[in-house]
Amino acid sequence: MKIVLAPNAFKDSLSAIRAAEVMAEGVRRALPEADIRTVPVADGGDGLTEIVLQAMGGRKMECRVHDPLGRDIESAFCYVPEKRLAVIEMANASGLRLLAPSERNPMSTSTLGTGELIRQAMDQGAEKILVGIGGSATCDGGIGMAGALGVRFLDERSETIDPVGGNLGRIRRIDPSGLDGRAKDISFEAICDVNNPLLGEQGAAAVYGPQKGASPEQVYELEQGLANLADRVEAVYGEKVRHLDFGGAAGGLGMGLYAFLQAELRPGVDVVLDLVELDKALENADLAITGEGRLDEQSAFGKAPTGVAMRSKKRGVPCFAIAGSLGGNLSSIYSHGFNALFSICPGPIPLEQAMKDAASYLEKATEQAIRAFLAGKISNT
Amino acid sequence: MKIVLAPNAFKDSLSAIRAAEVMAEGVRRALPEADIRTVPVADGGDGLTEIVLQAMGGRKMECRVHDPLGRDIESAFCYVPEKRLAVIEMANASGLRLLAPSERNPMSTSTLGTGELIRQAMDQGAEKILVGIGGSATCDGGIGMAGALGVRFLDERSETIDPVGGNLGRIRRIDPSGLDGRAKDISFEAICDVNNPLLGEQGAAAVYGPQKGASPEQVYELEQGLANLADRVEAVYGEKVRHLDFGGAAGGLGMGLYAFLQAELRPGVDVVLDLVELDKALENADLAITGEGRLDEQSAFGKAPTGVAMRSKKRGVPCFAIAGSLGGNLSSIYSHGFNALFSICPGPIPLEQAMKDAASYLEKATEQAIRAFLAGKISNT
Repeated sequence: MKIVLAPNAFKDSLSAIRAAEVMAEGVRRALPEADIRTVPVADGGDGLTEIVLQAMGGRKMECRVHDPLGRDIESAFCYVPEKRLAVIEMANASGLRLLAPSERNPMSTSTLGTGELIRQAMDQGAEKILVGIGGSATCDGGIGMAGALGVRFLDERSETIDPVGGNLGRIRRIDPSGLDGRAKDISFEAICDVNNPLLGEQGAAAVYGPQKGASPEQVYELEQGLANLADRVEAVYGEKVRHLDFGGAAGGLGMGLYAFLQAELRPGVDVVLDLVELDKALENADLAITGEGRLDEQSAFGKAPTGVAMRSKKRGVPCFAIAGSLGGNLSSIYSHGFNALFSICPGPIPLEQAMKDAASYLEKATEQAIRAFLAGKISNT
Repeated sequence: MKIVLAPNAFKDSLSAIRAAEVMAEGVRRALPEADIRTVPVADGGDGLTEIVLQAMGGRKMECRVHDPLGRDIESAFCYVPEKRLAVIEMANASGLRLLAPSERNPMSTSTLGTGELIRQAMDQGAEKILVGIGGSATCDGGIGMAGALGVRFLDERSETIDPVGGNLGRIRRIDPSGLDGRAKDISFEAICDVNNPLLGEQGAAAVYGPQKGASPEQVYELEQGLANLADRVEAVYGEKVRHLDFGGAAGGLGMGLYAFLQAELRPGVDVVLDLVELDKALENADLAITGEGRLDEQSAFGKAPTGVAMRSKKRGVPCFAIAGSLGGNLSSIYSHGFNALFSICPGPIPLEQAMKDAASYLEKATEQAIRAFLAGKISNT
């Protein structure tokens, strides 16, 4: 019997990789001869980096880049030589967490460092580059990133502008001719965790500007600047980018990656599940089990376990989820492909104990889920 | 699909009857067309009385009897007219709970009232009488009970003794000729919750005497008295009663029911599971689910859920258990016939909440167990 174990991390308790390991122990307790495939998953972001580093044999590549305010900092990305795959977190070069609260100001921040990370990944020989975009300190529409790779943004005097959010309104022309020639042979994917368009009420400036430090006046100026950028981009590239899904992610970096590097913009879960080759693991599987620290109706959307369930359903593979905690009303969750949902908790226990003993509890809960599944199988024969 | 729901009570939270009801709701959520049989069970004692009264349409018959010290009290037993079945709790007439702590003294207590309850049940026309023996205040070897039904216990002057524990040593002869003639046509079963023999280190006086108020000297005297009774019984009835299983239950009432009324002495669980006709319900069933407040390796023995699992296994029916709380190490429990074990807890919650919301949690846990079972069935087709 082939069983696929594809858990997300149990936040603050078990990594996805560890969760998959203990689930495998649980399966073996119930069914020693099981053909087990462990496929730890992630929503994107940090979890993905860990999976790439540990489960896919990736290496952490350290390098120096410019932070959102142009200061020289130590940063890193992941590289999987066998797959010629690089995974970059924009937040490691251009993230809000790199700034003190008083330094936050999207008028003067740039995604320059993210572009530098991409260049370093190219230097490694990457043929595919995934860019996780989330947690940004910027609202520059990706012009810093593009600038680092040779795209020029010119003002009315045809001089190259400093690629920060506050200068977006000054762009009169884009000159893509200097773009690093390697870019066209590389497949780029942006891993998006929000689905905002570039402009408007749901856009990058209006929704995320304030938390990055923009005043209402600055939000207005950034909106005008991004609209100006969109005009120039559409003029040069002949593509409509105003209403692009995910275009507003990371202060418009989504749009920038799409326009300047022809990146595909995709929800994080989809990218991750492709990367770990979940579909291949699900071939001819009898059962899939996913998991997560907490599962409820609200958090189900766009999360890795839901992705696992949806892909399982598509292939006719039953899917269980085992969570540290299950939300109250789960009646709508089954339509995503979940067949049954379990908690790891063996009784009334405090949260601290559930977190501390999560490995042992998850192992036992997995054993029971398999036992219940097998009871159904057996009763059929 | 035929599903048998046979839960025990969830102590201090859900009666067995209520538990079966909410489990049925859970099954219907997962499988609306299920053929559901609810068979609430009990270990014996109070739980049985409730099942007889509510699930079997029994009536509570009130009557006056003598308490352990001979005082006139209000008591009751259950009667199911359709089945000509009476269920008596000895503790309702001869129980420790009827005495103040200072009144406890097995030298002067008697099972007389239990015999009176049996006589009242005979008056109703009972053809089968179950006597739950547990919680007794007595150590009289059942002579009070037998005395109430006409058996005479005579001293050296051939005078009838007062049938209390302290007089056991004075018995020289038993005269069974006055026994109520209806007794021989009635099937008696004693429902035992402990497995002690009448005499010795594990006997009725040594183990339970002290908690009934006996001093070490009195324990010795009671032991001598019970040994004397055994001699006299064996002389009259030609049966060896010294080493009888369950003979020491309820201060030797087990032995007394066996000797004087030819009662079968049986573990409570077996009697209950027969009474509720579990075996019939299990015929052609696809799955059985039992449940209990707490399930662990120690408490598994002799408890109703284990009985349900064992009988399910015998008939090749998979059996799940759903508990408020599962004990730590459950690896040996599967041999009893449990296929999978679940907790009702959907996450880390306080005990009070688990008890308060037990109905809702049990319903949901049942739904998930069925869903997991169905996933196994479906994946086979």
